[in-house]
Amino acid sequence: MDQQRLRGVMAPVLTPMDGNLNPDVLRWIALCKELLSNGCTGLAPFGTTSEANSLGIEERIEMLDRAVEAGIPASKLVVGTGTCALPDTVRLSAHAATLKCAGILLLPPFYYKGVPEEGIYRSVAELLERVGDSSLKIYLYHIPPVAVVGFSLALIERLKKAFPMNVVGMKDSSADLAFHLSALKAFPDFDLWAGTEKLLLANLAGGGVGTISAMANVIPAEIRALYESWREPGAEDWQSALDSHRAAIKEWPLVPALKAIKADETGVDEWRLTRPPLVGLGDAQAQAMLAAYRATFAG
Amino acid sequence: MDQQRLRGVMAPVLTPMDGNLNPDVLRWIALCKELLSNGCTGLAPFGTTSEANSLGIEERIEMLDRAVEAGIPASKLVVGTGTCALPDTVRLSAHAATLKCAGILLLPPFYYKGVPEEGIYRSVAELLERVGDSSLKIYLYHIPPVAVVGFSLALIERLKKAFPMNVVGMKDSSADLAFHLSALKAFPDFDLWAGTEKLLLANLAGGGVGTISAMANVIPAEIRALYESWREPGAEDWQSALDSHRAAIKEWPLVPALKAIKADETGVDEWRLTRPPLVGLGDAQAQAMLAAYRATFAG
Repeated sequence: MDQQRLRGVMAPVLTPMDGNLNPDVLRWIALCKELLSNGCTGLAPFGTTSEANSLGIEERIEMLDRAVEAGIPASKLVVGTGTCALPDTVRLSAHAATLKCAGILLLPPFYYKGVPEEGIYRSVAELLERVGDSSLKIYLYHIPPVAVVGFSLALIERLKKAFPMNVVGMKDSSADLAFHLSALKAFPDFDLWAGTEKLLLANLAGGGVGTISAMANVIPAEIRALYESWREPGAEDWQSALDSHRAAIKEWPLVPALKAIKADETGVDEWRLTRPPLVGLGDAQAQAMLAAYRATFAG
Repeated sequence: MDQQRLRGVMAPVLTPMDGNLNPDVLRWIALCKELLSNGCTGLAPFGTTSEANSLGIEERIEMLDRAVEAGIPASKLVVGTGTCALPDTVRLSAHAATLKCAGILLLPPFYYKGVPEEGIYRSVAELLERVGDSSLKIYLYHIPPVAVVGFSLALIERLKKAFPMNVVGMKDSSADLAFHLSALKAFPDFDLWAGTEKLLLANLAGGGVGTISAMANVIPAEIRALYESWREPGAEDWQSALDSHRAAIKEWPLVPALKAIKADETGVDEWRLTRPPLVGLGDAQAQAMLAAYRATFAG
């Protein structure tokens, strides 16, 4: 395996908004640095938790430029670039490649539903052709609960075979343990990331490389600790402790809940803002959520 | 009702691709002109049938500029501008407004699923605020079979009430007759378009304004004839004849099938190309589809 490739715990970095519902880039860069200092082995900016698909193409390009200029190492970044439209995906992916980012996290084109796998295959093939950078590393982003369109095992196999130097891994956010285990078994030479820390122990035991987890925005060190000690006694208890934090907030929408935790941690109320169509938690909701969440750390 | 507002038969114009899978803009403009000469009362470029969500933001802007430069009247255009990301939607919508297009066809932000209606409401409110053109006419684009996210009657009512000069109509592509009739009844002062010509008679009988129909790309005159004569004897037979054309191709994916019909009509084989993730019909599929389709005109 390529020694350069990332492993461990990555955060799909939350995108703080300002009062005009535009990204607060300085606050975002500060969070990126904080996460890398406090447990994350890498970052996946522009994932689902980042509200990436609510960001404009130009916004994403500017944010990434500014992050790299601010000293965030491109070698630690797997950048979400998948959109519905090939030219936009090409533009974002080529930009990430130019900055020498570690890779891209690629949603399939997700507007049309029920498309043939051949069509998704061609979208990846055409992307590689148009970007024209043989070093581009693609991590497939499988998240059928949101994107609906996803990557089957058969399609992954075909893509790996056709583009072995490029299609190197996947973030599996299916939240489907059986699928995750099947993928681990089918592709031992593939960098398989659990899309939730709930599957971190299962992922590592099955030969996976770690987790790209929304919760890593708020408890990076706790998740990293499990990654580092998963073979040791007590790992299952630690997994259960992680699970309890997530379970406490599961009745609230995830991105607004995580932003409310950030607002509480930092005292910056703007942290609660989300861009439409997501809606931030109200005061009472946030208080109830925070009480439940904080209680899971009391033990 | 505003005398300027469009009624009748609109085509969500197919987007011909060239051998590099880029839009063939000259061929597209020629189709736009042909459709306006042969039955369409207006055009809805960049709908689902147009593969709009497979086109880049820049591509859409350039295509619309060139169409207007080529003499397509902006007053006949309701332009699809809805994307997942507010800034991209704002950019496309402001561009359409600047060109004095008749309106925009607005998908809700469709990446996140299960979002609160408040979030969709805010996305429309924020769009209007950012475009800042009080004359902007919005046609909501309700197509839950593809976008999953849609507009409920309660949300439509709220949007109409908040923005009565802007939110003036809807393309209902739910293909759900009961919903369509409910919307017609609930909003008699709303420009309600049937998203399929299958519901044209029901739409007009219920006080709707016509249809924005994929099939109008290939049989605009036939659909227009029903629009013009729907109160006359024989209208139901004419509706049945229209239905038979669509029924003949329903086992094939719609956009590839329509493109194969265009290729057959024009002798231009490139017409069969689609951009990934859609996949054009193979030779045998196209032949079988065309035979079934042509047979419906034989009587």
